[in-house]
This record gives sequence, structure tokens and C-alpha cells, in this order.
Amino acid sequence: MRILGIDPGLATLGYGVIDTQGSKITLITAGAVITPPDMITPDRLVKIRCDIRELLTVYQPQEIAFEELFFSKNITTGMNVSAARGVTLCACAEYTKELFEYTPMQIKQAIVGYGKADKHQIQEMVRMILHQEKIIRPDDAADAVAVAITHANTGMLREQFRMK
Amino acid sequence: MRILGIDPGLATLGYGVIDTQGSKITLITAGAVITPPDMITPDRLVKIRCDIRELLTVYQPQEIAFEELFFSKNITTGMNVSAARGVTLCACAEYTKELFEYTPMQIKQAIVGYGKADKHQIQEMVRMILHQEKIIRPDDAADAVAVAITHANTGMLREQFRMK
Repeated sequence: MRILGIDPGLATLGYGVIDTQGSKITLITAGAVITPPDMITPDRLVKIRCDIRELLTVYQPQEIAFEELFFSKNITTGMNVSAARGVTLCACAEYTKELFEYTPMQIKQAIVGYGKADKHQIQEMVRMILHQEKIIRPDDAADAVAVAITHANTGMLREQFRMK
Repeated sequence: MRILGIDPGLATLGYGVIDTQGSKITLITAGAVITPPDMITPDRLVKIRCDIRELLTVYQPQEIAFEELFFSKNITTGMNVSAARGVTLCACAEYTKELFEYTPMQIKQAIVGYGKADKHQIQEMVRMILHQEKIIRPDDAADAVAVAITHANTGMLREQFRMK
């Protein structure tokens, strides 16, 4: 099974693609879609849509797992990050109905077994699970891989994380 | 000049199309894109994208004016409305660079000449400007027509409302 993990964002959207075979997990790719701050918001949204569609075409994931967005204290930033999440969800929903969402706490619990684990513990555990020499960079890409691994390990509980 | 006005939303997105010729304004169409609450959010976003693209193809507006979204107190609702706004902006930005945005106060000021005018005063003034027998329904469609008229009347100040 091929899973795409996404950590939504406007300036930086993290993505990670993994393959699972039984309990074996292989990293296929990880990276980030970056949009420059001097680009107007509507154009940043168009770039995100194009880049997500290209990812879907190139990597053909069967299921997609999102990290749930927590709302920023800055309302303008929060609205624009939510707008980017909307564009990303729309592009993914056109491609598949297999969309799932996990909270940061569920991801920490699944990866480290402890819902209050810090970022470094998560990244180190993701590195070990995937037999990588170095931790995945940037942070948003590592977060996206973590949500993909979380989804891979959800098993029988999966339906409860299906996006509504 | 043909102008599309949009009042963004997830459950109900209002739209209105007007033609301007000198100071004469003609209503071409007004209505709402509705998505049912029992549809999952990603599918609602896909429907909004499809319906907006159809509006653009059918009515071919030269400029598009949005009512600025004010953030809901309910964060989940606010995030989903922002997501719908993002999808709408993205579809419009693929179509044209002529995107503008107005606050509710700017719209009230432009239509009634008073920034604290109530909804009914706006709707009645929109009815008179467009020589309609009845006020435009639903409310979201009337709001969308109001932002289109606001844009039509902005004249030399227009550039300051260009979307960033």
C-alpha cells in the first residue's frame, strides 16, 4: 500500500510518501511545497494546487493522511493556512475518497507511544523506523512522513480517522 | 465591463454578475452555490470548485470582487469556511488576475453611504440600483451583488482593493 502524508500549510506544506508491505515501511520520498511570501495569496493557492496534483500523478498514493490543522492565534495567518488546507483537500478529494486525518497527539502516540513526545523524539523515531541515516528535513516533511506512518499503523481503527 | 461578486461560504456561497456601461448597472444573474451539510467537507470543496468554474465559463466576468470573510467564533466552522474561500480564490485566480476584496463596512459605505447600514437597507438599495421589483434572494446572493456594485463604483480607488 502506498500512503501520502501531508502536513498542510501556505508557506510550507510538508509531504511524505511511504510504501507498506506487512509491517515493513519504506520511504519513497519526502519534501515540501514552498510558496514565497511576496507572492499574492491567490497565486500561492494556485501553486499549491498544481504541486499537489503533480505529487498525486507522480507517486499515485492509494490513501492520503493529513495532520489536523490547529488554529493559529493570528487570525489572518490562520485564515490563509485554512485556505491552503482547503485547496489541498479539494485536489486530494478529486483524486481519491481515501482521505484520513490525525491530530498531533494521535501522531505522537502512534510514533513514540507517548502523546506529549517532543518534535525531536518524533523525528528520531521516524528516522529509525525508516532506517535512514539522518533525520528527514525540513521539519514539515518529517511531520508529513510521521502522519503517513501513523496511518500505516492504524489498522483496524482506521475508519474512525476517515475525514468528515 | 462584466463583474462577478462573491460572498464566500461553505454551506452557501452567494454570487452575482453585473454589467456596467458608464454609470448604468445591469443585473445579469444572482444566486447561490449550496453544499449539503451531510456531504463530507472535501466533497463540498470539490463541488464549490466545479460550480465556480462553471460560473466563470458561462458568464466570463472580467473582474471579480470578494466580500472579505470575517472569522467565526466557532473555530471549526471558521476553518471550513476559510477552506471554501481558499478553493474559491484558487479557481478564480486560475481564471484571472483581476481579483479584489472589500470589507462589509466598505460595501455598506459604497451602497448606502453609511458604514453601519443594516442588511435590509443594503438589499433595498441594491434592488433600486438594479431596477428590480423584488429584493434579491437568498441573502448571500444579494450580498454578492452588493460587492459587485461596490467594485463597479470604486473607480480611481480600485487598486487599493486589489487582493494581496
